[in-house]
Amino acid sequence: MRPGSGVEVRHRDSIETGDAASGGNVGGQDDDGQAQAIAARLMQRLDLLADCTDTPGHGLSRLFLSPAHRRAVDLVGGWMREAGLSVRMDAAASLIGELAGPTPGVPVLLVGSHLDSVRDGGRFDGNLGVLGGLAALELLHARGVVLPFGVLLLAFGDEEGVRFPVTLTGSRALAGTLDIERQLAATDADGISLAEALSAFDGDPDGLSTARIAGPVLGFVELHIEQGPVLEQAGLALGIVTAINGAGRYRLLVEGEAGHAGTVPMASRRDALAAAAEMLVAIRRIALGLQDVTATIGRIEVQPGAVNVIPGQAMFTLDLRAPLDTDRTKAWNAIRADIGAIAQAHGVRLAIEPVHDAPAAPCDTALQSRLEQACAAEGVATRRLPSGAGHDAMAMASLCPIAMLFVRCKGGISHTPAEAIQAGDAALGVRVLARLLQSWIPDRSAQVSRW
Amino acid sequence: MRPGSGVEVRHRDSIETGDAASGGNVGGQDDDGQAQAIAARLMQRLDLLADCTDTPGHGLSRLFLSPAHRRAVDLVGGWMREAGLSVRMDAAASLIGELAGPTPGVPVLLVGSHLDSVRDGGRFDGNLGVLGGLAALELLHARGVVLPFGVLLLAFGDEEGVRFPVTLTGSRALAGTLDIERQLAATDADGISLAEALSAFDGDPDGLSTARIAGPVLGFVELHIEQGPVLEQAGLALGIVTAINGAGRYRLLVEGEAGHAGTVPMASRRDALAAAAEMLVAIRRIALGLQDVTATIGRIEVQPGAVNVIPGQAMFTLDLRAPLDTDRTKAWNAIRADIGAIAQAHGVRLAIEPVHDAPAAPCDTALQSRLEQACAAEGVATRRLPSGAGHDAMAMASLCPIAMLFVRCKGGISHTPAEAIQAGDAALGVRVLARLLQSWIPDRSAQVSRW
Repeated sequence: MRPGSGVEVRHRDSIETGDAASGGNVGGQDDDGQAQAIAARLMQRLDLLADCTDTPGHGLSRLFLSPAHRRAVDLVGGWMREAGLSVRMDAAASLIGELAGPTPGVPVLLVGSHLDSVRDGGRFDGNLGVLGGLAALELLHARGVVLPFGVLLLAFGDEEGVRFPVTLTGSRALAGTLDIERQLAATDADGISLAEALSAFDGDPDGLSTARIAGPVLGFVELHIEQGPVLEQAGLALGIVTAINGAGRYRLLVEGEAGHAGTVPMASRRDALAAAAEMLVAIRRIALGLQDVTATIGRIEVQPGAVNVIPGQAMFTLDLRAPLDTDRTKAWNAIRADIGAIAQAHGVRLAIEPVHDAPAAPCDTALQSRLEQACAAEGVATRRLPSGAGHDAMAMASLCPIAMLFVRCKGGISHTPAEAIQAGDAALGVRVLARLLQSWIPDRSAQVSRW
Repeated sequence: MRPGSGVEVRHRDSIETGDAASGGNVGGQDDDGQAQAIAARLMQRLDLLADCTDTPGHGLSRLFLSPAHRRAVDLVGGWMREAGLSVRMDAAASLIGELAGPTPGVPVLLVGSHLDSVRDGGRFDGNLGVLGGLAALELLHARGVVLPFGVLLLAFGDEEGVRFPVTLTGSRALAGTLDIERQLAATDADGISLAEALSAFDGDPDGLSTARIAGPVLGFVELHIEQGPVLEQAGLALGIVTAINGAGRYRLLVEGEAGHAGTVPMASRRDALAAAAEMLVAIRRIALGLQDVTATIGRIEVQPGAVNVIPGQAMFTLDLRAPLDTDRTKAWNAIRADIGAIAQAHGVRLAIEPVHDAPAAPCDTALQSRLEQACAAEGVATRRLPSGAGHDAMAMASLCPIAMLFVRCKGGISHTPAEAIQAGDAALGVRVLARLLQSWIPDRSAQVSRW
């Protein structure tokens, strides 16, 4: 489709090649050329979008409701319009590109991801899901596929939760699960409330409840980089997500007794860090022993923190995740028992403060199978894996069946300027995503009338 | 002796009670009363001296060459004068109260400690050794003891090394071991050089080499609070120091790979903190297995230090001490081997940077025996123990035999406003110190003529 042309994918008569309902001539020469052009444009757009940053010349930082977020909305909104989508921004500043269904009242399928980034982040996290979704629609259009349902291409603004101490504002608002008052009252480092920032961004803090999606929803599909090393290590371009891991976060405070590094004999010490170190070792051992459980100590701080003073206090955080909440509970119970015993053995006090708990969000098993079929149809080997990272799909799970398709990323790293994917992998992701979208077409003869 | 009276302890004719050379009537009623009065005044003076702080109303902070240091020098110098000592300040801003020997050219005995404190420190660390030394001289005077040698009561200004990144300026200058250029060039947090601060304090940066003590020196005796829990746990008021522990300090840097806390499977991680935690456990185990060796990890910092990011880097410090340098070497070799193996097992890089190394300073064994005899004569149970903390005596060890007498401190804690000692313990310390001073008197008939 040419830039500036109206979106026509739902008008059967505009399609010249192949059989839309069966996927058209996806292996044909013409389609390959179109698919390649679309994939190439996707990578170009990801590069252009990366210029929307709050820190020009110093990597990509695009915080929620920031000037860079505004530029990203304008840029992506323009591309959506070029693709013929009707574009709007909802009350929560989510950018929405709508491909209307063939008749009023048909259900909608939700596709997308987020536009915000962490500080000094990468250009694919989130952005790939938005622009990859757009590319899939473009591919379907190029193939002359008529979708018998509406599509909302979603570009959420607050998946990372970096600027305000809250997160998933857009997807929760859409799913109708937002704690609106709490979310609006959150303030950033400059004391600006989310409500104020949203108003200044032409969002609608007072109308947040209206962001909730109305009408029947088929599902939510999110393409995303893996942000981990599993696919790369397995030599696979794509992976099918089984669940977005449940996550618990804890703040653990060990209180011993500070003392002079030279004068207190080893056996007389109640060294908070010595106890904490044993706890860290135990926590790792427990997580290593359980399938797909991760336990991470990302922060540790000791007081008073002088080279010649025995630490009287050690604080560390624990991030515990698992695709099954039962496994996470099992891990936490084992950890609690072990670290309690270590505290006792060291004569230190241990205080545990749970600071976050999000249950696992399982991906729809039927959609996992359909993604597998789509991969097989594209000749792409794949595997199922949990998502250790949180995603907007988590919030959408309360609204509809969710599916996530992972694209391999270089070195498994994310949230850094070094984040990278292969163009070929992205192209495969777009193809498989397009096939998944088609899989909602019930059968060829009933593709319009059934809805 | 009355405030304002000249010091007369070397004039036998001013003494009315007892036999000086044998220690006089130390058990007698009169002596007890005098000793009690002197001990009480010692505690009062320690309280008064604590008011010389750079942070009035907020604990005791008396940094080297600060206004509080100046007030402390003036206050203590006044008390020295009251006791009849001739008072001066040397080029390194050490306050010196001299009790001249009976004839010119006799050797001198050095007694003292330091006046500077850490930030928010205690009132006994250092101060007890200066004012306790003064009290011992007062007690000898009260007992009519004539010392056949000179005494220099020393109040050093830079034992803690807090203001400038150097330490022991006073004692090293006196011992003639100061690296003068390096010391003078050191700057404080405000960019003021030690040379500038010393000039402003009426010290003499250009004449630092003249601070070196000339003539024969009998020894250096330092009374000090233990700053550890050993004596309190043993139920002992006083302890005899065997050595000032040698100390090595290291900065250890573990470099692994940062990653997303949720997306990198446990078995794929190169978690710098996980490796560091195992190192900490190993270091503690090694130190626990060696007599009188301490190993302290006082600081630990991880990068990037976010709750949901696997630490890519962990830095920690190690403070390793032992009374015997051979034991310290043995400990360090074992540590190095273990942490190297741990780094290898975790696939992380380990860089070790030695940042400090001070050999052990053994206390003179003959003086240890004489301190034991002095304790026995006072009916005080005691024990020998190493000093884990550094002291001015360390610097003096290159000049002369050193002896240190420890006074029990509450909870073994020091370097805090909670630092506390019992008045009775201090009084015993002064009595034993006085006896030790007397022990240099060769025999009663020759007490003057021999020197």
